[in-house]
Amino acid sequence: MADQPKDTASVPTDPAVAPTPTPATGSTSAEGAEVSKKGAKKAEAKAKKEAEKARKAAEREALAASSASASSIDNAKDNYGQISHIPTIKAGIAHLRDLGEGDVGKTVKVRAWIQNARMQGAKMAFVELREEGNWTVQGVVAATAEKKEGESEGDKEGSEGVVSKQMVKWIGGLKLESFVEVEASVQKPLEPVKSCKVSGLELHLTKVYLVAAAPEMLGLGLGAASRAVGRLDEEEVVEEKVEGLTITEGTPLASLATHLNNPAMHKRAPVSQAIADIRIAVEDLFCEYLKQNRFKKFHPPSLIGAASEGGANVFKLPYFEKEAYLAQSPQFYKQFEIAGGRKRVYCVGPVFRAENSNTPRHMTEFIGLDLEMEIEEHYHEVLHMLEGVLLYIFKGLSTDYREEIELIRTVYPSEEFLLPEPGKEVRLTFAEGQALLRSEGPPEFANVSDTEDMSTPQEKALGALVRKKFNTDFYVLDKFPIDARPFYAMPDPENSAVTNAYDFMMRGQEILSGGQRLHLPHELEKTIRAKGLDPNQPGIKEYVDVFRSVGVPPHGGGGIGLDRVVAWYLNLPSVHLVCDYPRTPKRLSP
Amino acid sequence: MADQPKDTASVPTDPAVAPTPTPATGSTSAEGAEVSKKGAKKAEAKAKKEAEKARKAAEREALAASSASASSIDNAKDNYGQISHIPTIKAGIAHLRDLGEGDVGKTVKVRAWIQNARMQGAKMAFVELREEGNWTVQGVVAATAEKKEGESEGDKEGSEGVVSKQMVKWIGGLKLESFVEVEASVQKPLEPVKSCKVSGLELHLTKVYLVAAAPEMLGLGLGAASRAVGRLDEEEVVEEKVEGLTITEGTPLASLATHLNNPAMHKRAPVSQAIADIRIAVEDLFCEYLKQNRFKKFHPPSLIGAASEGGANVFKLPYFEKEAYLAQSPQFYKQFEIAGGRKRVYCVGPVFRAENSNTPRHMTEFIGLDLEMEIEEHYHEVLHMLEGVLLYIFKGLSTDYREEIELIRTVYPSEEFLLPEPGKEVRLTFAEGQALLRSEGPPEFANVSDTEDMSTPQEKALGALVRKKFNTDFYVLDKFPIDARPFYAMPDPENSAVTNAYDFMMRGQEILSGGQRLHLPHELEKTIRAKGLDPNQPGIKEYVDVFRSVGVPPHGGGGIGLDRVVAWYLNLPSVHLVCDYPRTPKRLSP
Repeated sequence: MADQPKDTASVPTDPAVAPTPTPATGSTSAEGAEVSKKGAKKAEAKAKKEAEKARKAAEREALAASSASASSIDNAKDNYGQISHIPTIKAGIAHLRDLGEGDVGKTVKVRAWIQNARMQGAKMAFVELREEGNWTVQGVVAATAEKKEGESEGDKEGSEGVVSKQMVKWIGGLKLESFVEVEASVQKPLEPVKSCKVSGLELHLTKVYLVAAAPEMLGLGLGAASRAVGRLDEEEVVEEKVEGLTITEGTPLASLATHLNNPAMHKRAPVSQAIADIRIAVEDLFCEYLKQNRFKKFHPPSLIGAASEGGANVFKLPYFEKEAYLAQSPQFYKQFEIAGGRKRVYCVGPVFRAENSNTPRHMTEFIGLDLEMEIEEHYHEVLHMLEGVLLYIFKGLSTDYREEIELIRTVYPSEEFLLPEPGKEVRLTFAEGQALLRSEGPPEFANVSDTEDMSTPQEKALGALVRKKFNTDFYVLDKFPIDARPFYAMPDPENSAVTNAYDFMMRGQEILSGGQRLHLPHELEKTIRAKGLDPNQPGIKEYVDVFRSVGVPPHGGGGIGLDRVVAWYLNLPSVHLVCDYPRTPKRLSP
Repeated sequence: MADQPKDTASVPTDPAVAPTPTPATGSTSAEGAEVSKKGAKKAEAKAKKEAEKARKAAEREALAASSASASSIDNAKDNYGQISHIPTIKAGIAHLRDLGEGDVGKTVKVRAWIQNARMQGAKMAFVELREEGNWTVQGVVAATAEKKEGESEGDKEGSEGVVSKQMVKWIGGLKLESFVEVEASVQKPLEPVKSCKVSGLELHLTKVYLVAAAPEMLGLGLGAASRAVGRLDEEEVVEEKVEGLTITEGTPLASLATHLNNPAMHKRAPVSQAIADIRIAVEDLFCEYLKQNRFKKFHPPSLIGAASEGGANVFKLPYFEKEAYLAQSPQFYKQFEIAGGRKRVYCVGPVFRAENSNTPRHMTEFIGLDLEMEIEEHYHEVLHMLEGVLLYIFKGLSTDYREEIELIRTVYPSEEFLLPEPGKEVRLTFAEGQALLRSEGPPEFANVSDTEDMSTPQEKALGALVRKKFNTDFYVLDKFPIDARPFYAMPDPENSAVTNAYDFMMRGQEILSGGQRLHLPHELEKTIRAKGLDPNQPGIKEYVDVFRSVGVPPHGGGGIGLDRVVAWYLNLPSVHLVCDYPRTPKRLSP
């Protein structure tokens, strides 16, 4: 991946002409914007103002370009300029990913973003064109010999193939991240263009139309968008280092807030595209494996009539004459599906937590990957299914997404995610985990209890111990204490202090909670009362009623946090870098 | 599908014994429950009370069964009864769908629901066992010769293979929709068992354990659950007919409300399972086609910081110190993805409408199938893509889901969904549609306007005309008037009174809205102002800012209502029969 664009300031290496080391002007100034120490709002306001100024300038420029000035007739005036709606290039469209040696000599139409643009003297310009994530190619344009005034008059084909100095200058001045449509002849450069992914070809531009102009100043340049975030919280910018991030000394890094406030540029960075592609893969692999195992999809509702687990951390809203709540999980509905005769079900969708947790692990809305299934003989059938689907995901990623993983590692370094050998999956009981922490963990965990839930630092310490001892970043913690689980968890029939419930861990952090559920109404009523709740209170009654209404077979399941799986697999510093539009107590936009 | 179970009251036809025409007692009484005229709540309360009574009775019965009475020693006491958590049958598990002639003579374990149970004299009982939707098989159990008291004592294998009269009586009295685990010998019946899907085999039961008991009285019997709903609104029961539903005279039909208030039984009906399977297929085919066409999935947020289109019909909720809204569509976020360098995107997820519409077409939360893509030359590229994906879905359904469609038609009759011949897709402009209505439609539409949006009756009338004229139930209405579209719709560059936007129709009802979007910020600002809004108001500013921040290529897309596609394809009377857990102004549970 040495030819990935890492910096908009890189200069195209073209052997045909002497390369000039001057970076494109738009690029450095754009990247300077996010390293200032001003408040986020001020910077934003400034960027907007400049964007508006730039837009007007672009309009003026376009106007000037399309109307030849009286003093100098522009014979190429039809070959460039701003267009509105109707495309003007007749050549067949070509996509950069499809271009090959066989296309040399062909005239093609390409639609792409200006990733870089610079003049080479007065008669030549170079652009880097980017399409579809990170496909880049070099475009070259040079002024043709000028015709005399008389020659062009009355010559209907006059402008065809003509490149004027005005046209070259206009192209060399195109704003970064503008969208253009070009006509070009595909040519082989004398030497590979190292700065572009399509290094074995270049485009000799004959027409260039501006479809959508970018502003003079970007809120976030592609160079900064393509680097690691410099700070995770919602402050604007940063100079100090963030733990876990390798930062080249002196590299200007944009904060997470700057990234998220500039969604188009944040998303255009190859690293963001690769993370998004891996996120899709995780979801697709999850669904693929479950379909192979006869699971059926369904959609639980987000709007529910009552807070289901006691009312803490639930969003509440007015709903016509009543009140509604946003579902914290699809738990009850997955179980209703089992009661409704589906043997195995799964769902993928948003769940909501009104928790004021401002950490890199938390969001107020996130995508859950959930499954539930009948248990035939032992609740470990479910545990094995969940292990199976996760191992299938990890295998799919390491097989088919090497390129994306390597690209992401150039920005967010990580060690390979260690997996257990097949048949040697690591499953500790909660008590065994605590015992390991007490005997081999850091001194502060010398007295951890078998009946209280683990804290995040405990989880991380145990993850490190398990990695050292078993050489895996993925393991299961089974038999959680009853006080650490919700009322619907099935107690271990042989030890009522613990449950048939488990968490799954990646790099020492929880990504899944699951277990066997109570399926008999009178047992449910008992555990509900033991938690200090009433089996007939709103939200709980509707749930227990389903088990009262028919016979429901034993069943269990689990819920996976999609963004956590991706973040911890790649060792990213935050789930907010994975989610398409993260929602936190402080962030509701864009 | 003649062997589908349609009625729990049907009697297993067993040639080995004289069939008794007496229906199982639990069945008829359960189905009588929903035809009474009492209020919904009263009936529900009654059903619950009875359910509780039944549960207690079942417990007593189980207790009695498992503890042999002093007066009569039960040699089979270990072979039946209620179990709690640990399964007791050692034979390998068999699934009804996998059973074949080759299994005759084998001893298997089967886990299933009691669909029917009845005594045949004092020594024999028949049950119908149901697994996985609608796989049913007949189970037979007959008392073996009784041993004398002395014989069984000290005989360790004493109970193996023994079936007592008590055991037969207990099995014959099992409550419908209880979940059991049985050990049985697979046998060939003398004649096919017509009432069961597995008609060529029967199970000779040797052990029967009750895993989860159903109550004495079901809130909704499988027979009624398997029939058409008798009434669509949220009233309890009905006697008159519903338009569009074919109802056998005198058949007791449960209302939609009764169905939805009994989710486990509603979902257990084969017709519900088939509808759910088709819903999954529609979603899967949608995703499959788009992946083949290089679309990438993403997840838009449900929680947003501001009402995006002026604030009407939006759910609002307190969000920490601020306010949040529930997204009415993923529209803006699909466009942000295009701005972020994705050429083609799609998403599947819930959207929310706070609209007090109580019709069979409306829900307050529904699953949207959405796509957005770059336009290269003409906005009809998007229209063709949307046509393509829908035709792909229809083809997939008619090819691979014949069995489900036929089953659904036995309950909700429908004519085959008419499709245009390939290459002859019907695309009318809005004006052409109105002209057709004026010239050939019902008299009340003789003066419909080309500039006002269509009403639902107009849509239906036009659908009927199109069907007659073009022999298709699927067509496109293009070039909607500008006043009928939101501010982001691209006006037709040649006629600013209309837009490059369209609706797709199925059986005369809208299932999709889409079109080309404005991609230049100054044009967006103009149309926003023309709609009386401010381009810098909250919710709209963040949107326009994205187009101000970078150059965004021309693009368009569309949003499909998943449940509408399924409902209108199958000609169902309501989308509430398609959605897994419908949400309306009056319904938030279960």
